[in-house]
Amino acid sequence: MASTTRALLLVTLSVCAIGSTNKTPYREHVFRTKVDHFAYHNEETFEMRYMVADQYWDRNGGPIFFYTGNEDDIESFITNTGLMWEWAPEFNALLVFAEHRYYGKSMPFGNRSFESPSKLGYLTSEQALADYADLLLHLKAKLPGAERSPVVAFGGSYGGLLSAWFRIKYPHLITAALASSAPVNMFPGLVPCSTYSIAITEAFRRESELCTQAIRQSWSPLEAMGATEKGTKELQEKFNLCQTLNPGNYTVFRDWIRDTYAVLALVNYPEPGSLITPLPGSPVKAVCSALTKAIGNRSAMVDAVAAAVNLFFNSTGTRKCHDVSIFQSAVPSWRFQECTELVMPVCSDGVTDMFYPSSWNLTEVTAKCRQTFGVTPDIYKSVMLYGGGHLARATNIVFSNGDVDPWASVGLLEPPSDSVVVIIIPDAAHHQDLRFSTPLDSEALTAARRVEKNYIRKWIDESLPVPEKTPRVVAKKRASSVLFKFSF
Amino acid sequence: MASTTRALLLVTLSVCAIGSTNKTPYREHVFRTKVDHFAYHNEETFEMRYMVADQYWDRNGGPIFFYTGNEDDIESFITNTGLMWEWAPEFNALLVFAEHRYYGKSMPFGNRSFESPSKLGYLTSEQALADYADLLLHLKAKLPGAERSPVVAFGGSYGGLLSAWFRIKYPHLITAALASSAPVNMFPGLVPCSTYSIAITEAFRRESELCTQAIRQSWSPLEAMGATEKGTKELQEKFNLCQTLNPGNYTVFRDWIRDTYAVLALVNYPEPGSLITPLPGSPVKAVCSALTKAIGNRSAMVDAVAAAVNLFFNSTGTRKCHDVSIFQSAVPSWRFQECTELVMPVCSDGVTDMFYPSSWNLTEVTAKCRQTFGVTPDIYKSVMLYGGGHLARATNIVFSNGDVDPWASVGLLEPPSDSVVVIIIPDAAHHQDLRFSTPLDSEALTAARRVEKNYIRKWIDESLPVPEKTPRVVAKKRASSVLFKFSF
Repeated sequence: MASTTRALLLVTLSVCAIGSTNKTPYREHVFRTKVDHFAYHNEETFEMRYMVADQYWDRNGGPIFFYTGNEDDIESFITNTGLMWEWAPEFNALLVFAEHRYYGKSMPFGNRSFESPSKLGYLTSEQALADYADLLLHLKAKLPGAERSPVVAFGGSYGGLLSAWFRIKYPHLITAALASSAPVNMFPGLVPCSTYSIAITEAFRRESELCTQAIRQSWSPLEAMGATEKGTKELQEKFNLCQTLNPGNYTVFRDWIRDTYAVLALVNYPEPGSLITPLPGSPVKAVCSALTKAIGNRSAMVDAVAAAVNLFFNSTGTRKCHDVSIFQSAVPSWRFQECTELVMPVCSDGVTDMFYPSSWNLTEVTAKCRQTFGVTPDIYKSVMLYGGGHLARATNIVFSNGDVDPWASVGLLEPPSDSVVVIIIPDAAHHQDLRFSTPLDSEALTAARRVEKNYIRKWIDESLPVPEKTPRVVAKKRASSVLFKFSF
Repeated sequence: MASTTRALLLVTLSVCAIGSTNKTPYREHVFRTKVDHFAYHNEETFEMRYMVADQYWDRNGGPIFFYTGNEDDIESFITNTGLMWEWAPEFNALLVFAEHRYYGKSMPFGNRSFESPSKLGYLTSEQALADYADLLLHLKAKLPGAERSPVVAFGGSYGGLLSAWFRIKYPHLITAALASSAPVNMFPGLVPCSTYSIAITEAFRRESELCTQAIRQSWSPLEAMGATEKGTKELQEKFNLCQTLNPGNYTVFRDWIRDTYAVLALVNYPEPGSLITPLPGSPVKAVCSALTKAIGNRSAMVDAVAAAVNLFFNSTGTRKCHDVSIFQSAVPSWRFQECTELVMPVCSDGVTDMFYPSSWNLTEVTAKCRQTFGVTPDIYKSVMLYGGGHLARATNIVFSNGDVDPWASVGLLEPPSDSVVVIIIPDAAHHQDLRFSTPLDSEALTAARRVEKNYIRKWIDESLPVPEKTPRVVAKKRASSVLFKFSF
């Protein structure tokens, strides 16, 4: 499930990228870095891509805003991180957007990069962060004025994890980080596997308890139809699917419906919108209205689900058919990361959540990962390397989450230290605060961005003159007596 | 030169290990960890060795004292880090000594581990730290009571770097670190390459300016003799060498003398001692006395140098001959690390220092490293990964240095942040504070250890209840107005 939930975000990002490029003029560069930063068994290098916008930069001390690219072409993050563009003139900042290895055009082994694991094996968050550190050192050496520039890391979702981890792991390079919707508790052992499913259910419960009951009831008639050739043919027609449905691939269809509910929760704005797809205002209300009317009638329930899906994907009536694979990742990179160090257990029981019972089983996940990529999930690695949600020793990071975003359920919701700030933004979606501001933004969202900006400003200011008021203990021996001089 | 200077420390350590084992009862264990923690191109594992002493441990919250093993068999560090044993009863601490991969018995590929770089290539500080993190997670999961134990990292020299880096890179696992004689500024670009040579010279200048002049003059007659077959034969006899000397290997002989001066500076105690070899009190004074008398007499100067060497290696008269390769590392591991990420430029000019002119040339170093190991020195890597001496963002680390230790010249001598403590210990040698206390310890050394202990105690205490007084910004939307609630 994690793979498909993740894919939802890619859908969000790629649709949102449309039409923003005129606001974001940048230059494309490449930087040659090592395929393996942590061993010397091979010396191969590759060109990673990065984008630079220097039109706002004050070379005399202006900071560097560094987007820690995540699981997509870096260009989509440029246009979806309007916040950096909007803050740049005020901070006189240099904007740098670095592309994550194995995404976009940053392929360590060109078109052989997906030969796994001998080629794909270098796809890890640690290597990506080392790419970014290497690039930063290069920029600081190459760009006059950059040497002393404080660096602020920005990122959303997995990019939010990377921005926080960049600050944690490279404190000598990174002054502060804004980690939006970073799922720090997604890893095994940190929260129950039901957390994400319950969070989606909660989003629907806000509309009505009855609605979650309706959805919970709907799986039974769907499953009954999914068990027969006749039933699946009927489903295929009712749901206007592009693919041929049969009992063998029913679960793909079922998971697609589940994921549609997850995205609906993400985009449940009161006003009509087009965040992922054109939608009427309060789409969850519309979907729930139809579903709750069908309670107790199995056939009507199937029709209501079909209507719900159609409302989401086809409110303008222009889509010819529905592709049930829309939420599957196109490139194997993300699935590889999920099979190695970004393992997220997701389960549902149909009782505390509105889904069908679905367990998370490490043995099954492992078997699938070994079959697909020849790797074994490294379930404790991210916690070992980065601490998961145990961030009491982290500093200078803002963790923000929108409270209608199901991913917030695995975010950092309580501040663990004196200088880790947690911001919960009501009615905001997945890393919505990173986007360009619009007239439709809520006052809460606007205010949250202001708070974020003030902290980033504060941490930059604090970093400028290095404090020198620290205990230095000098034990000086004079003649035969010992003098301890404590100079503070 | 770096390789030989480093080797001096091994000599120190291995000699000091004698006779301490009865004070340090421990149990030996192995832990299976990954050969490569940062990529998935291979899944090999190996057994790293670690030692545990739990006789002082309070399982109800007692801390873990973790020695970050460096470039030798872990057993030598156990007996040379008496400080941990002496503090353990007071802290009710569990003692863990982890062996560094590719040293001692922790060989990732058994006796094929030195096939480079396909096998030796996994010898990096980052991999070693990940071994330690993996081991710590294992211990915390396996040992009842260890889960909530704060962990303090200890280390000397390269081990001091590792202990500081462990705290910096794994703040969620490591509460504090005592980094003794950690050469944080050894890396290219941080200090002039002459720094270490000047520091050795300074140790002799303390005895007398004339002595440094004598040593500076001595290279000329030695070199003249080293240029001919007759001269080298004479040198071989005068210096009682085990090896045959000829003009082709004269520089090995010359470097051995230089390194002997470096070790003399390390062990110049006022009282007779046996830190490396049995020595009279104030050996530098004795050496300098003979050398200064020979000023102006080239033949007498050669004899004085031979006497100096003999005083150091053979004050008891039991050594049959002198081995000029004594300071060369026996295992290739350290030389490999020097050829990859632990690159230390060392040069001398014979003007500001007392040595012969010797440049540091990256091209030559690179050629030698490529020839020996097939690798290219990664001169900026340690600074990229760890920040070198730029530690303004580090916290909870004590950096201690003995001021007669030439390595202190590349140590951290000024505190860079509010919670990095710098201690300079007069008349103390290389990580002498980590050793068992003795009646001969100076009051300054004793006091320095007390200060170190107080800081470690303070940081442990501060870590126990996680602070929860942090800014949490909750933006709550109520009716149509926006309320921001800042709860501190």
